[in-house]
Amino acid sequence: MSGAPKANAVVAQSGGPTGVINASLVGVIEEAQKHAEIETLYGAMHAVAGMKKDDFIDLTNLSADVLETVAGSPSSAIGTSRAKPDEAYCEEIIEVFKKRSIGYFFYIGGNDSANTCYIINNVAAKAGYELRAFHIPKTVDNDLLVTDHCPGFGTAAKFEACALMGDDLDNRALPGVKIDVIMGRHAGFLTAATVLGRRKDDDGPHLVYVPERGVSMDKFISDVDGVCRKLNRCVIVVSEGMCDVDGVVWTKKIADTGEKDAHGNIQLSGTGTLADFLAGQVKENLKIGRVRADTFGYLQRSFAGLQSEVDKREARWCGRHAVQYAMEEVSGSVAIKRVGDGKDYKVELFRTELINVAENTKSMPDEFINAEGNGITRAFVDYAMPLVGGLPETEYLGGYPRV
Amino acid sequence: MSGAPKANAVVAQSGGPTGVINASLVGVIEEAQKHAEIETLYGAMHAVAGMKKDDFIDLTNLSADVLETVAGSPSSAIGTSRAKPDEAYCEEIIEVFKKRSIGYFFYIGGNDSANTCYIINNVAAKAGYELRAFHIPKTVDNDLLVTDHCPGFGTAAKFEACALMGDDLDNRALPGVKIDVIMGRHAGFLTAATVLGRRKDDDGPHLVYVPERGVSMDKFISDVDGVCRKLNRCVIVVSEGMCDVDGVVWTKKIADTGEKDAHGNIQLSGTGTLADFLAGQVKENLKIGRVRADTFGYLQRSFAGLQSEVDKREARWCGRHAVQYAMEEVSGSVAIKRVGDGKDYKVELFRTELINVAENTKSMPDEFINAEGNGITRAFVDYAMPLVGGLPETEYLGGYPRV
Repeated sequence: MSGAPKANAVVAQSGGPTGVINASLVGVIEEAQKHAEIETLYGAMHAVAGMKKDDFIDLTNLSADVLETVAGSPSSAIGTSRAKPDEAYCEEIIEVFKKRSIGYFFYIGGNDSANTCYIINNVAAKAGYELRAFHIPKTVDNDLLVTDHCPGFGTAAKFEACALMGDDLDNRALPGVKIDVIMGRHAGFLTAATVLGRRKDDDGPHLVYVPERGVSMDKFISDVDGVCRKLNRCVIVVSEGMCDVDGVVWTKKIADTGEKDAHGNIQLSGTGTLADFLAGQVKENLKIGRVRADTFGYLQRSFAGLQSEVDKREARWCGRHAVQYAMEEVSGSVAIKRVGDGKDYKVELFRTELINVAENTKSMPDEFINAEGNGITRAFVDYAMPLVGGLPETEYLGGYPRV
Repeated sequence: MSGAPKANAVVAQSGGPTGVINASLVGVIEEAQKHAEIETLYGAMHAVAGMKKDDFIDLTNLSADVLETVAGSPSSAIGTSRAKPDEAYCEEIIEVFKKRSIGYFFYIGGNDSANTCYIINNVAAKAGYELRAFHIPKTVDNDLLVTDHCPGFGTAAKFEACALMGDDLDNRALPGVKIDVIMGRHAGFLTAATVLGRRKDDDGPHLVYVPERGVSMDKFISDVDGVCRKLNRCVIVVSEGMCDVDGVVWTKKIADTGEKDAHGNIQLSGTGTLADFLAGQVKENLKIGRVRADTFGYLQRSFAGLQSEVDKREARWCGRHAVQYAMEEVSGSVAIKRVGDGKDYKVELFRTELINVAENTKSMPDEFINAEGNGITRAFVDYAMPLVGGLPETEYLGGYPRV
C-alpha cells in the first residue's frame, strides 16, 4: 500500500442511534485534525441520504468544547437513516464523492452499514476511484461479528441494569408480577443485561427470556407461577423478539391466533402489545391481582446524561483508530478484542475486512443462557459487567430481621 | 405543649415509590438518633399493613454507610402499600402502637398518607393515647397542597427532562412523529417537566398535553399536522390522564366508542393502549410514515442512579424536620416554601396542619399552561428548573450551515 493521499473525507452515522455513536464521530473528527492528509472533513447529513444528495456540513475545525459536548450527547448528531442502498445508489454516491474530492469515508453503524461501506468500496474500486472506506461499529444490540462487543451496547446495558435495579426495588416495595419488554429482535444481549444489577439471591429479574431460545406460553406461565410461589413476587424481562419453541415470534403468534387478552380484546400490533398481552395471560392464568407491564421503547437507546464511561471511551477509540487505519490501509472495519490475563478488563483494537462484519450478525452464545431457557448465566455477567462502567449501589431494608 | 415524652417511634412509607422517598426515611432515622426522647425507631414494613399486623424492623442504629446507600436508592426501602385505612383499621394500629409504646409516628407519602396520619392522630386523641403524628410529603405527581413542591417530583422531573432531551435528539436524527405518554392522572406537572431540557426554539417536545386542559382528538391531530408542516417532525408528550373538552379522559373515550386504530383493532385497555391508539390516529389521519409511541411506565419513578441532588437534599431535610417538629408539636405535615429575592433558589421548611394536606390535591396553575392548551409556559420552567438540580448539555450538529 502506498502512502495515504491528500484528500477530503466524509463521516456519517447510520442505523438506530445509540448513547455513544457521537463519541465515535468525535473520535473521527479529533483524529482527522491530526492528519494533514485529510483536508476537509465533511459530515454527511442523515447517512447515505446526505451522501447521495450532496447534503454536507463541515466538521474539520470543531472546537474541543463542542466536541466534548457532542461526545456526551445521545443519538446521532449528524442524523441517520435506515436506508439500505444498492449498487446503483452507491454509484450516485461515488459521483458526489468525486465532485467533492473525497478520498476517505468513515461510516459508523451496524452490519448493514458495514455492508454499505463494502458496496461503496467495491463500486469505487470498479470505477478506478481511489477511496479508503472504513466501518466503525455501533449497535445497542451487540450483534456484530468479529468484535468482542459493540460500542453502544455498554451504555444501553447500563440503562437496562439501572432500570431493572429500580424496577426490582419497586416490585419489592409493592409486590406483584412485573413484566418488562426490552429491545432485541434477534439477539438477547440487551435483555440479558437487565441482570447486571443483581446482588442478592432473590434480586430480580427472576426470569429472562431471549430470542435465542424458544419458550412456549405454557412454560412461561408455569415459570412465573413457580417464582411467585417461592418469592410472592416476580420480575420478568422479555426480548421483543421472543419466540415460541417452533421459532415463531410471540408477537406474530398472538396476531395469527387472534388470542384474546384478559379483557377480551384482540391484540394485534403496536408497541405496547406484547407487554399488555403477557400481563393479561398472567392475570388470567394465575389469578394474580397486581400485574404490571412496561415496554421500554426508545428510552433504552437515547437517554441524555446516561453513558457508560467505558463504552464512551471505546467508542471514541474506534473512531480514532478508523482514521489511523485509513492512513495505512484501503478499507476495513474496526473491532475490539480483550487482552491480558482475563482478570483485569483490557482491550485492544484491530482492523478486520469489511466483508467479515457485513454479511451476518451474532446471537448470544449458548453458555450465556441457562439450561431452562429462562435465565442468564454467570458467564454473561463476567462478559458484560466491565462494559457498563460501574453501577450504583442500592439497598432494600425489608430483609432485616423482624423485631 | 409540654416537653417531648420519652417513647418509641414508628416510621413508614406509603403510596407509590419515588426516587428520593428513601432520603426522607434516612432523614427521619439520622435525626431520631440525635434525640434521646426517641428510644427505639421501628420501621413498619409495607406501611399500614405492617403497623396493623405488628411487622417491624429496628432502624435505630443503622450505620452512616448504610444510610447513605439507602438515601441513594430508589423505591421504598421498607416497602409500601396503597391501602386507604378507615377509622376501624386505625384503631387496630393504635393497639399495636400501645403494645410497642409508640409515642411518635412519621408517615412519608402523598395526600392519602396525610389523611391516614390525620385519622390515626384523631383515633389516638379520642382514645386518650399520647401520640405525635407527622406526615412527610412525597409524590412524583407534585400534587400536594400547601407545599411549594413535593420531594420526589424533582427527581422524576429530571428523568422526564433527560428522556425527552434524548428522545428529541433521536427524533432529529430519524425524523417522524414521536408520542410519549407520561405518568399523571390529574396533575400535569410531570408531563410539563419534559420541556425542561429544551434549549433551541425547535427543540421538542413540540406539543404538551396535560389533564388540566381538555383537548379534542381533532385539535390534537390538527396540532400535530401544524408542527409537522413547519419542522417535518414532531415530538409530543401526553399525560396518561389526558381528557377531551368535555372532561372525559381519552382512554375512557377510546374504550367507550370502540374506536379502531390504524390496524383495525379495537383498543380498550392495557398500559400501552393510549400511546398505540394516538400513534394509529396520527398515521391514519396525517399519512405520516414514521410514527412511534412509548409509554414511560414505572421507569419514571424508580430508576437506579438517577436523582436530583436538590430533590434528594430536600427530601432528607423534610425527614429531619419532621422529627424536630415532633419534639415541639403534637402533629403536622412538613412543607416547603421558597424564600429570598426569587433570583437564587432557596427554600425553608415549615409545619402545617395535617388536615390542610389530607383533603385535596393540587393541579397545575393556569399560568403554567399556554392559551391553546398544547404547551407549557416559561413560568413553569422558572418554577421547576431549580428542582431538577442541573441537566446534561447536549449538542446536535444538523443545524450547522450546509457547505
